[in-house]
Amino acid sequence: MVELSLAELAREIDATLAGDGEIRVSRLATLQQAGPGALSFLANPRYRKYLETTRASAVIVGRDQRVASDVALLRCDHPYAAWARAARLLVPAETVEPGVHPTAVVDPAAQIDPTARVEALAVIGADARVGAGARIGPACIIGEGVHIGADSHLLARVTVLARARIGARVILHPGVVIGSDGFGLAAVDGVWEKVPQVGSVRIGDDVEIGANTTVDRGSPGDTVIGEGVKIDNQVQVAHNVEIGAHTAIAACVGISGSTRIGRYCTLAGGVGIVGHLEIADRVQVTGMSMVTHSIRQPGTYSAGTPLMGNRQWRRNAVRIKQLDRLARRVKDLEDER
Amino acid sequence: MVELSLAELAREIDATLAGDGEIRVSRLATLQQAGPGALSFLANPRYRKYLETTRASAVIVGRDQRVASDVALLRCDHPYAAWARAARLLVPAETVEPGVHPTAVVDPAAQIDPTARVEALAVIGADARVGAGARIGPACIIGEGVHIGADSHLLARVTVLARARIGARVILHPGVVIGSDGFGLAAVDGVWEKVPQVGSVRIGDDVEIGANTTVDRGSPGDTVIGEGVKIDNQVQVAHNVEIGAHTAIAACVGISGSTRIGRYCTLAGGVGIVGHLEIADRVQVTGMSMVTHSIRQPGTYSAGTPLMGNRQWRRNAVRIKQLDRLARRVKDLEDER
Amino acid sequence: MVELSLAELAREIDATLAGDGEIRVSRLATLQQAGPGALSFLANPRYRKYLETTRASAVIVGRDQRVASDVALLRCDHPYAAWARAARLLVPAETVEPGVHPTAVVDPAAQIDPTARVEALAVIGADARVGAGARIGPACIIGEGVHIGADSHLLARVTVLARARIGARVILHPGVVIGSDGFGLAAVDGVWEKVPQVGSVRIGDDVEIGANTTVDRGSPGDTVIGEGVKIDNQVQVAHNVEIGAHTAIAACVGISGSTRIGRYCTLAGGVGIVGHLEIADRVQVTGMSMVTHSIRQPGTYSAGTPLMGNRQWRRNAVRIKQLDRLARRVKDLEDER
Repeated sequence: MVELSLAELAREIDATLAGDGEIRVSRLATLQQAGPGALSFLANPRYRKYLETTRASAVIVGRDQRVASDVALLRCDHPYAAWARAARLLVPAETVEPGVHPTAVVDPAAQIDPTARVEALAVIGADARVGAGARIGPACIIGEGVHIGADSHLLARVTVLARARIGARVILHPGVVIGSDGFGLAAVDGVWEKVPQVGSVRIGDDVEIGANTTVDRGSPGDTVIGEGVKIDNQVQVAHNVEIGAHTAIAACVGISGSTRIGRYCTLAGGVGIVGHLEIADRVQVTGMSMVTHSIRQPGTYSAGTPLMGNRQWRRNAVRIKQLDRLARRVKDLEDER
Repeated sequence: MVELSLAELAREIDATLAGDGEIRVSRLATLQQAGPGALSFLANPRYRKYLETTRASAVIVGRDQRVASDVALLRCDHPYAAWARAARLLVPAETVEPGVHPTAVVDPAAQIDPTARVEALAVIGADARVGAGARIGPACIIGEGVHIGADSHLLARVTVLARARIGARVILHPGVVIGSDGFGLAAVDGVWEKVPQVGSVRIGDDVEIGANTTVDRGSPGDTVIGEGVKIDNQVQVAHNVEIGAHTAIAACVGISGSTRIGRYCTLAGGVGIVGHLEIADRVQVTGMSMVTHSIRQPGTYSAGTPLMGNRQWRRNAVRIKQLDRLARRVKDLEDER
Repeated sequence: MVELSLAELAREIDATLAGDGEIRVSRLATLQQAGPGALSFLANPRYRKYLETTRASAVIVGRDQRVASDVALLRCDHPYAAWARAARLLVPAETVEPGVHPTAVVDPAAQIDPTARVEALAVIGADARVGAGARIGPACIIGEGVHIGADSHLLARVTVLARARIGARVILHPGVVIGSDGFGLAAVDGVWEKVPQVGSVRIGDDVEIGANTTVDRGSPGDTVIGEGVKIDNQVQVAHNVEIGAHTAIAACVGISGSTRIGRYCTLAGGVGIVGHLEIADRVQVTGMSMVTHSIRQPGTYSAGTPLMGNRQWRRNAVRIKQLDRLARRVKDLEDER
């Protein structure tokens, strides 16, 4: 880690310093766990209680945050964004030593940029290309004809098939599968016949995809993930889905085939979206909701039932099965007035 | 890809040709993206609007589809099934060159058919068998005593343990895990003790399993997946589950231990099924439904609440907690009439 | 497998034997599939019907179980726990031959205990430590600075990064990812900026984690999984989550960032928990429930709607959207009385 004075840090992250500019920080920590030399932050009001007692050397807070203690403060408009920038300053990106590990299995017809790094036991197929500064982690599999853009980082055990095109500065976490076959089946006399899957996957620049997430190839046509899209762990993106730029998708979301999601959307954890829908730009869907129809207007959408004690839930859940009848009974009472 | 005339194609897929039989196609494309030389199809009415303007050389459509443009048509009873067959003709299966890659780690006591292919960095344990024409992709792990049937294809990074038996023509996508331990725990004085898992997994012929899906071994007894079953990505099949032939399971489904699912069922994305249930043949469960009791009759079953704007949802969701009381209040009103 | 007489077995598992103590068993089987020489058990009353016709040589049952047949019985207080113990006696743990497979890629600065085993194509980074008797299965990736405790077993293709600390006797199943980056994003002018992830993961002794489960590193601070925690397949544990000792988490659960779960909890399959919550000790959440607020009291909690025939569901589901209005209409009727 790097060591920085609060004066330097305030300048870099556009903060107003309340405290001694000579104090130096060289670590990142939560308010609860911080000690001398650590920088911390307060963005979520739930953790405000820890602000008074923190042993951090400095804390990034909002412009108007009240603080009773005399800890040094870096006041910012957007404390979490400022924290992100401060973290990048204190934890500089690793420099990547280029080269191909001797245990990697690289097809002679693959093109590895001389500034790229290919780690142990990676497999790189014919006609694949790995761009400048890219890093292919251990045991990654880069199929025939796949392109990996400049400065992208596949951490470990990532599989990319189907001649997929991966943009620049893309981060793919362990266990990610890109370009597996879609669930293309045709029923013939009650038996499922496989529809050959022939399309690919295109992933824009600055995309990040979390551990064990799967992105199927399109067929025909491609599955497309726009630039700046961020996808968490264990998300399923089916064939021919299109995701607009700068959309964020939390863990355990499933998106069915051919659905198109707009730009600047957010899907919370566990959301499911059925196939062939269109979701407008700037739509937010709250956790574990199922989306069964297209959404034309920006805004926040929800489904689901609230958590209850199990006994209360049992009493109420059975009533859901009688709800239509209950509504008719109310109608009858109204008509009898 | 192969090039075929529409006359040949019509014959092969049992279509009535409306157009010039001499036209040749050699590519597959969606209606929107097709150009000259491409074959396309219309199976889902949502995409009808693209039919008039497509630049495809020919389109597979239903027998009675109305079309205003003069694009060549291949009229079929089941356009999606015909598309599947046409795709298999235009994209013939890769011929697999047999042999074991020098970086594969194969136990001397494994039996690899001389016509099988074992790719880079695969690991094959003692007493494992790989059948004729089978293909074990890069970095797959075939545990001790596992059998892989003829012409099966494990794409890459598939793990098969527990002496599992995999049938013929089975396709396993990257990240699939077969034969991991089930969640067998016994509570002893509040602490969980592991129950040793001793059974196996049996997978029938012509099964396909999607990326990052997991199938636990049974204990005692086996987990059984019938012939022709198709499973999408990120599905969880717990220990001792039995899935009947020709059932299709979409992504993100979870099936708890010892549940038996019938033949010709379809489970839509995100469905959850609790343990020890029996689901009859020809049952369909719609997306994200939770199945908490056995289903004895064929038919379609559903659970869940509809998507709403968040404000509307908040108002309604709180009422679900009061639903039993609401029903009692209606009863009181009725009694007072 | 080992062969044991019923007399020996009864002594070892604290059972009362009803039958011939000389009978010997050497296999484990379900009641339905058992034959001579097999030991079986009855713990779930659903399977009682098989008890009269089983061909098992002996069956572990509850103290008061009525049985009409003359099969030998081992009567116990907790038949499933007794079954677990009997299984451990009949299926003794494999002895692990120590040594590093010649195809493993081990950094010279890693410390592998001489009694540990590192299997084919594993990758072990600098400053990693593998404890006594630990077993690193084929194609596992142990990142720089990671510690694996004594007698832990990583089955195959497990990835551990971020200098994680794994306790003793921990079992990690294939496809598990420990120490991937959390979903830490800050919105800056509508674009997502990555927050560098700097913390780690600490996993206590006797933890078991199922296939393809993911556990993100904290930042700052650690993600913590307490001793004796059991996690099933395809569970997502986000950054900075803390899970108390002896909690059990079934498959397909998702836990969002910074949530703290108590000790001795059980989360059933498909449960989702939003971020920054606190769940008390001894809380049980039933399947597919979404937890949106902290839970302060032990007990069982539920959400969700019951499964219905699709037609019935359609009629009722639409009424959920009118529920607030329905409640107001009932209020009006009451006011008019």
